[in-house]
Amino acid sequence: MSRFMGLARKFNCFYFNGDLHNCRPFLVGGIQVGLMQPRVVEAALRHPDVFHFDSGSGSIMLHPAFATYEERSAKINHVLSQWREQSLFVTLKGWRDECYEVRTGFADPPLMKMERAATCLFGIRQYGVEIMGHTRHPHLGVCLWLQRRSLSKPTWPGKWDSMVAGGLSVGHSVLDTALKEANEEASIPSHLLANLKAAGSVSFYFESERGLFPNTEFVYDLELPADFVPCNADGEVESFELVPVAQVMERILTPDFKTTSCPTALDFLIRHGFINSDNEPQLPELVELLHIPLHYLYSRHQQRPSQITNSNNTSASN
Amino acid sequence: MSRFMGLARKFNCFYFNGDLHNCRPFLVGGIQVGLMQPRVVEAALRHPDVFHFDSGSGSIMLHPAFATYEERSAKINHVLSQWREQSLFVTLKGWRDECYEVRTGFADPPLMKMERAATCLFGIRQYGVEIMGHTRHPHLGVCLWLQRRSLSKPTWPGKWDSMVAGGLSVGHSVLDTALKEANEEASIPSHLLANLKAAGSVSFYFESERGLFPNTEFVYDLELPADFVPCNADGEVESFELVPVAQVMERILTPDFKTTSCPTALDFLIRHGFINSDNEPQLPELVELLHIPLHYLYSRHQQRPSQITNSNNTSASN
Repeated sequence: MSRFMGLARKFNCFYFNGDLHNCRPFLVGGIQVGLMQPRVVEAALRHPDVFHFDSGSGSIMLHPAFATYEERSAKINHVLSQWREQSLFVTLKGWRDECYEVRTGFADPPLMKMERAATCLFGIRQYGVEIMGHTRHPHLGVCLWLQRRSLSKPTWPGKWDSMVAGGLSVGHSVLDTALKEANEEASIPSHLLANLKAAGSVSFYFESERGLFPNTEFVYDLELPADFVPCNADGEVESFELVPVAQVMERILTPDFKTTSCPTALDFLIRHGFINSDNEPQLPELVELLHIPLHYLYSRHQQRPSQITNSNNTSASN
Repeated sequence: MSRFMGLARKFNCFYFNGDLHNCRPFLVGGIQVGLMQPRVVEAALRHPDVFHFDSGSGSIMLHPAFATYEERSAKINHVLSQWREQSLFVTLKGWRDECYEVRTGFADPPLMKMERAATCLFGIRQYGVEIMGHTRHPHLGVCLWLQRRSLSKPTWPGKWDSMVAGGLSVGHSVLDTALKEANEEASIPSHLLANLKAAGSVSFYFESERGLFPNTEFVYDLELPADFVPCNADGEVESFELVPVAQVMERILTPDFKTTSCPTALDFLIRHGFINSDNEPQLPELVELLHIPLHYLYSRHQQRPSQITNSNNTSASN
């Protein structure tokens, strides 16, 4: 297996090695929006007024009596606040007072909102934005601007990350989030942001001690003039460094790089031809692992592909 | 569902609607390399000296006695030649005397080779190359060069297609194939080909009356000067047309465009920001459908994601 394929298995560790047998689907309004690990199921079922175990399907449902966005959001927030006070889950130490929408697909209407730090307890799909700031340096060739995350951040402190990155909070569009974060994290002036180009998205399924991360990142490319130097405005960045692409390829393989920001770095290196079929024999497989079918993992539509697999599982074991 | 999502379901019709219950895994050397429809299984089992039905696993195996690349290739070619003479399958009317490698993943050693026109009968993964020739036109903005396929081609005659496209035959690398086809199909001179940039790959699973197409296309971008006009050299192209991207977005939605060349067009439009989260609310899902996990459909590794689904299938039906 190539080094980049090893990395792709690392940021897709739940896709490959997750303890799925013991996880339970999490349903809101009769629709699966997440997946819960046993330790979270156990905690949730101590609140029978809010969570309901459906023995027929083996899933956990938010109580069907809660019919509106507001009611669902308030009820779950009440439970989460108790868990936070009880220090039940390490992820809730990073409580942000910032909410993410909970929905099936990105284009579907949100069913409720949830504190950002808690979404990984329920395996809720998270959406973010990353800006791949790059420069054609006269001597170093194409370079990416990387940020080193502040040492005081609750998650991934001191790790290397994309130049600009942020989660999609309630009430903010994708482009709004990109522009807001570009301003706060790197002080990029608006005349340079006019150059911002959408370049698709990546999807992967990561797991850490905090919980489950079925993540989608919207990707933007931003070519910057060689003399521009980013400057942090919100205290969330320790420093910035202009890194030639050859060094980026090495750095993403080290533990110093935020694992969940490696997909967008790989995607940039592939889209711009730095990683290609000549230097990466498993290129098509690597590209597939940057776009795993998250939308189908929680939906009935995945049924058919899994059937291909089941036939194979039987046969391949012979 | 958005128009582009509808298109993505069309070129992934087997992924979504394929008659999988009745298909059988096809194994060579104990490894799954394809999938066979009932009509092909029926024909194959009339050759018990070549094909073996394993009732335990429900799969069709190339006879285990054939241990080498050469022997396997010769034995299957013998059967295919008979089927061609008997006019058993419409796809064999397009016999090309050109072979594709049969392997599990792109980086794995080939297990045998097979006539290109027959690979769809066995659901063998096919690899191709497409060059997205484009120009920044002074008045029309970014335009893609499209080719109209020759009316005498055995497949998709007269349909619109990428500027340059070709399958990966035995003995040719990805880049070799791109350069060879660029020369034969569009007479692109080598000083312009120096600009060729690898840009990743797309994967999809299509089905037609000819058979099954689990296809991967390696994608190259080629920016061309505004005054360059391609010219066909091998008789396989009817004409070329320079088409503004807004018109490309419309044309790929019509039946005049080769369905299996729509993924690379969509990928180009997304990578270059013409299709983005502002005009395509289902962007992440669309991007996922341009990169479906073909490498895992035929492998044991898909097991875990399918389990997420199985839990959900049960629960979502309540």
